[in-house]
Amino acid sequence: MSTTIKASKLSMQTRNLIREVVEGIKIVPHPDKEMIPLSIGDPTRFGNFQLEEEVMGKLGELISSYKYNGYTHSCGYPEVREAVAKHYSTEEDPLTADDIVLASGASGAVELAMKSLVNEGDNILAPRPGFSLYQTVAENNGAETKYYNLLPDQSWEVDLEQLDSLVDERTKCIVITNPSNPCGSVYSKEHLLDILAVAEKHGLPIIADEIYENMTFEGVPFFSLSELSVNVPLLIVGGLAKRFLVPGWRLGWIHIHDRNNAFDEIRVALGKLSQVILGPSTLAQCIVPYLLNEVPQSFHDETMAKLQESAMYCVERLEKMQGLTVIKPEGAMYVMTRIDIDAFPDFKDDREFAQALISEQSVFVLPGQCFLFDNYFRIVFCATKSMLEQAFDRMEEFVNDHFVKEE
Amino acid sequence: MSTTIKASKLSMQTRNLIREVVEGIKIVPHPDKEMIPLSIGDPTRFGNFQLEEEVMGKLGELISSYKYNGYTHSCGYPEVREAVAKHYSTEEDPLTADDIVLASGASGAVELAMKSLVNEGDNILAPRPGFSLYQTVAENNGAETKYYNLLPDQSWEVDLEQLDSLVDERTKCIVITNPSNPCGSVYSKEHLLDILAVAEKHGLPIIADEIYENMTFEGVPFFSLSELSVNVPLLIVGGLAKRFLVPGWRLGWIHIHDRNNAFDEIRVALGKLSQVILGPSTLAQCIVPYLLNEVPQSFHDETMAKLQESAMYCVERLEKMQGLTVIKPEGAMYVMTRIDIDAFPDFKDDREFAQALISEQSVFVLPGQCFLFDNYFRIVFCATKSMLEQAFDRMEEFVNDHFVKEE
Ligand SMILES: Cc1ncc(COP(=O)(O)O)c(C=O)c1O
Ligand SMILES: Cc1ncc(COP(=O)(O)O)c(C=O)c1O
Repeated sequence: MSTTIKASKLSMQTRNLIREVVEGIKIVPHPDKEMIPLSIGDPTRFGNFQLEEEVMGKLGELISSYKYNGYTHSCGYPEVREAVAKHYSTEEDPLTADDIVLASGASGAVELAMKSLVNEGDNILAPRPGFSLYQTVAENNGAETKYYNLLPDQSWEVDLEQLDSLVDERTKCIVITNPSNPCGSVYSKEHLLDILAVAEKHGLPIIADEIYENMTFEGVPFFSLSELSVNVPLLIVGGLAKRFLVPGWRLGWIHIHDRNNAFDEIRVALGKLSQVILGPSTLAQCIVPYLLNEVPQSFHDETMAKLQESAMYCVERLEKMQGLTVIKPEGAMYVMTRIDIDAFPDFKDDREFAQALISEQSVFVLPGQCFLFDNYFRIVFCATKSMLEQAFDRMEEFVNDHFVKEE
Repeated sequence: MSTTIKASKLSMQTRNLIREVVEGIKIVPHPDKEMIPLSIGDPTRFGNFQLEEEVMGKLGELISSYKYNGYTHSCGYPEVREAVAKHYSTEEDPLTADDIVLASGASGAVELAMKSLVNEGDNILAPRPGFSLYQTVAENNGAETKYYNLLPDQSWEVDLEQLDSLVDERTKCIVITNPSNPCGSVYSKEHLLDILAVAEKHGLPIIADEIYENMTFEGVPFFSLSELSVNVPLLIVGGLAKRFLVPGWRLGWIHIHDRNNAFDEIRVALGKLSQVILGPSTLAQCIVPYLLNEVPQSFHDETMAKLQESAMYCVERLEKMQGLTVIKPEGAMYVMTRIDIDAFPDFKDDREFAQALISEQSVFVLPGQCFLFDNYFRIVFCATKSMLEQAFDRMEEFVNDHFVKEE
């Protein structure tokens, strides 16, 4: 037998845009400068953001009890789902364990949610700039991603008219990311209501990716779509990765926020889909009630205070650089900056800009192309203060080396 | 908005046969008898099979190091894949980290493997009786499952001629489970070579589910297909669930055993598919090298000695019961028993038999229908000796109550 085995169509068309762009970049840092990666949305990377030791001890204890080695319900331990339900319940919108599906990270949750909704040939509406996962999952299911625009000059709000115009008879859902990766934006109540109105007009459900829920800066309130939707059924995606600083644990969830029993069938579908890989690891599941109930608010407050400080420092430094326009973030861990590309004639686009920043200064930022948004770059502001200082010193030098004043 | 949101076709056709049959059974145990579940393939259920405390301590230690909280490569930590590769390498068939894809349990591994191979409308060949997962995953991908027969009177060997006759132009792979769930059978080298010959004749790859590798009784050697295949490319599926008694941890893997570079494209496809949910939990990944390298052989020997003792006890008891014919297992955790259904006129089929066994005697066995094999039942022999004793005493009473001698 010497024939090649052909891979399936859907597997070969499964693309991860971030990886593709990054793999197309020559990542060869300057030999004399240590690499500063401001590229990966992993808050654990620099050791400055982590859960308290108590939590790790508690997890060790739970594991040693031998109670968490066996199979669970495919949607997760009932008591864990119960804890999640309780945590996210409001008086107007009470949840039960049956409304919660645990999954392998928010990624697994998005996969289940989208798979329950789309057939081959359908489409989903997703934000641009936006996180590449939605497209990856859509393509993996043979569906198309249509992009609605976020407006950088309006704090990355949705272009509602354009969103509305994208809907066709094969559109199966709208994906909303709030707070946003890569923008660091946080939507107001009014704007969320406007988005809901578009969804309601077309009878579309929303997959609301709220993995950065409550990760907003001082004075910026976070509203979950679940608090605001009267008639639009929602699959809210969340998990431990960002708020609890453990992305590797792969623990995410869907809350089914049904409205008018629109999701009767979707609920069944999610249950069926969960039976394929049988839920996330018990090692991560078992600590969820403790994390939600016992980790004090002060932990989250401190995390956010540090993130905000870093964010403001980034903005302050970037604002001073010629040819760049930073769009102030209000939460999450990201800030987007516009490159006046005509002022940098050495570079054709954001990709070349980012690549040269690596080779000359060993500073790694993701080009906007990773989020389908040209001539921007995204910075993850989780690095330590001293690393950020160094990174921006180098970036300043880089900008000064390449910026050409327009006459 | 009062319209119902329709679920996708593929999600709704995703069925888990075991659940369907079990949900169709009224599970109402006899009120005076405690339930003895011999139904679930979960060795942790009764507390008599577990990892040593040292391992749990080691895991707690690793977790406390804060080294395993971040994102990993989508196929898993390189050093963990390296450890798996090394463990399964042979001189003739060396593996590297690139040949290993870590996944969410063996289930996740089967899902990745099958997804990389099948398009909608394709088919796979799977064993009957067999584990329902293959059909679940195939249906989830729009593929059909065609069943090749295992022959109970030939130690559950494959009906090779019938297997051969099933192949058509849409057949994408053969799934082999060895040792077998639900049969507890273990194939000889010769039989595996015969199976390979059929695959080679048709140019088909094999997905070899070897999650029960080395779980064989004394004197019964285990051969991995990887040792025997000269020309048939293999995706070997395995994981921690059964051998290390931690199914809840959801840690499985694929070894890519390529032959003649047939899998160049499949390798790429598996990488792409892994980027969707980004690998299994780091909490389970991090202990894999320790489990493979440090857990002594005596642990596995003791597990198997206990399982064999239980198995032999089951056989001994079942052999004495009228109207039943037990097929002696040689490994894994399962034994299948034929019901001479005509000798039990109270019951139409194995499902009614199993249901009455619950309601009259509170003993839960899975009817053969769960594995597409009528008039058998499967027993999981992981329960403690005293539970098994009780279970068989009750089963004996049950059989005596219902058996009617044919004249
Ligand atoms: C918006 C958004 N959704 C989902 C995810 C994936 O989260 P998880 O690691 O839990 O799969 C990320 C990770 O960066 C994200 O930014
Ligand atoms: C033959 C076989 N393959 C795969 C699995 C699933 O293993 P995991 O729990 O690692 O997904 C099982 C579980 O019973 C099995 O019996």
